[in-house]
Amino acid sequence: MVGSVALDSIATPSGKRENILGGSATYLSLAAGYFSPVNLVSVVGSDFPGSHLELLKERNIDLKGLIIKEKGKTFRWQGYYEDDFNEAHTVSTELNVFENFKPEIPQEYRDCDYLFLANIDPDLQREVLHQVKKAKFIVCDTMNYWITQKPESLKKVLAEVDAFMINESELRQFSGESNLLKAVKKVMGLGSDIVVVKRGDSGAAMFTGNSIFSLSAYPLEIIVDPTGAGDSFGGGFIGYVCRQDRIEEKVLRKAMVYGSAIASFNVGGFGTERLKDLKFEEIEKRYQEFKELTGF
Amino acid sequence: MVGSVALDSIATPSGKRENILGGSATYLSLAAGYFSPVNLVSVVGSDFPGSHLELLKERNIDLKGLIIKEKGKTFRWQGYYEDDFNEAHTVSTELNVFENFKPEIPQEYRDCDYLFLANIDPDLQREVLHQVKKAKFIVCDTMNYWITQKPESLKKVLAEVDAFMINESELRQFSGESNLLKAVKKVMGLGSDIVVVKRGDSGAAMFTGNSIFSLSAYPLEIIVDPTGAGDSFGGGFIGYVCRQDRIEEKVLRKAMVYGSAIASFNVGGFGTERLKDLKFEEIEKRYQEFKELTGF
Repeated sequence: MVGSVALDSIATPSGKRENILGGSATYLSLAAGYFSPVNLVSVVGSDFPGSHLELLKERNIDLKGLIIKEKGKTFRWQGYYEDDFNEAHTVSTELNVFENFKPEIPQEYRDCDYLFLANIDPDLQREVLHQVKKAKFIVCDTMNYWITQKPESLKKVLAEVDAFMINESELRQFSGESNLLKAVKKVMGLGSDIVVVKRGDSGAAMFTGNSIFSLSAYPLEIIVDPTGAGDSFGGGFIGYVCRQDRIEEKVLRKAMVYGSAIASFNVGGFGTERLKDLKFEEIEKRYQEFKELTGF
Repeated sequence: MVGSVALDSIATPSGKRENILGGSATYLSLAAGYFSPVNLVSVVGSDFPGSHLELLKERNIDLKGLIIKEKGKTFRWQGYYEDDFNEAHTVSTELNVFENFKPEIPQEYRDCDYLFLANIDPDLQREVLHQVKKAKFIVCDTMNYWITQKPESLKKVLAEVDAFMINESELRQFSGESNLLKAVKKVMGLGSDIVVVKRGDSGAAMFTGNSIFSLSAYPLEIIVDPTGAGDSFGGGFIGYVCRQDRIEEKVLRKAMVYGSAIASFNVGGFGTERLKDLKFEEIEKRYQEFKELTGF
């Protein structure tokens, strides 16, 4: 997992928290850790609490690739959500040590089979791709900022990855198509064989060249904090594929369900709080609930 | 089926049509006719083309309950859709003979087992309920206009029906809740045991007291005209339940899929055009495609 590790301050209709553990690579790693050992590549400052490091270590996550800059401050994001949770409103972003982040993949990680490029500068995603050459399954994510700022670099990344994971609204923005299927075809033409679209409370959909899988969202009465929903989905997804170690339709579909299951728990607490005490049996139970929810 | 039969003039990004066959009861009846004989209760004027009457008759639809007012004009609606198809923009509505529509259920229809109250004045829906007393499965639909104008009357209708079918945005409006599950619970508290939520390109969901079924939408690259999508869904739904004549979870779930299948074809042509040549085998094939789309 290559991405951000952060300290977030979040306000939602359910309350607020300050300087809690966050960042895309954090959610990805915690979620994937339910299925597989994880190697985390990121950077934090000396203000990053040791308790967070302990949590990550306990959860199947190797921290050799997590640089701790002694003279730096951890990336911080402050934001809030309104009643409909449709959008994260950013109050402030302090890049801090992340400003000069250059992912250095430790030698012992370079032979890894599975690689997730979380939402970071596509130029940096490409640098990672140059260091990890043998991976058999590479997933990448992005966000509106990079779509606007570096579309050409992003396109070069897509030519080299197996699966592109993106929010529905960002997919529309990137493709310039309002129709989902047209948007996916356009993006698929850039190179990745698989496109996974995260659709919020409409669920998620996976497109391959010759099939479409559409999964409903798990209906939730209470959402405490949607931060990290997409990343915990992505972590569950790649974690399950890695565990099965077979990149085939059936496995990928199940991976979508496991990803959705973890995301459905994640939004039930602030930041990573819910993932801290989430048991694997609960994830398995939710997988069955997805069967009941969608079966006919 | 009790509802409107209309002549619609529709413009969409795919083109336009004038005075074509429309109306909620028309879509409902054509869709339900694939599964079961239909009794249609509505009113048209003397300008209503005989060819439309012929089409309806050919399609398993009894017209004893369709009043033709010799001195009246048929209900007409004119509207258009923009690129995203999110909303029907009304240009004009001429109620004409529909203005004084008082549904008179023919004696031979009064013992029917299945009743669909399409989107009409809830006061009229209640008059129908007083005439059809033995139905074992009653579905009703509504729209934003009645939610705003006659919420109390609508609530009285809901106390007497088995299933309430509603658009997601109208459900939110009616319940005052942005969370889907909370909105459904609030509405269920008014009486109907089943709530079916039509979610557009997010699919449809069915809530009973102890289960939720969530079905993805069939992904379509081209939408010609979304008019009648919800009503053709509703018609396929009740038609299939009527054909099976068992009101049980398994049947209701399949009914949701058949309704969605017909709706997915309906939006491929203007007005009812696509339903005119749609074969049952195509519907069965799409049902299987829904299995492939959603199975894991």
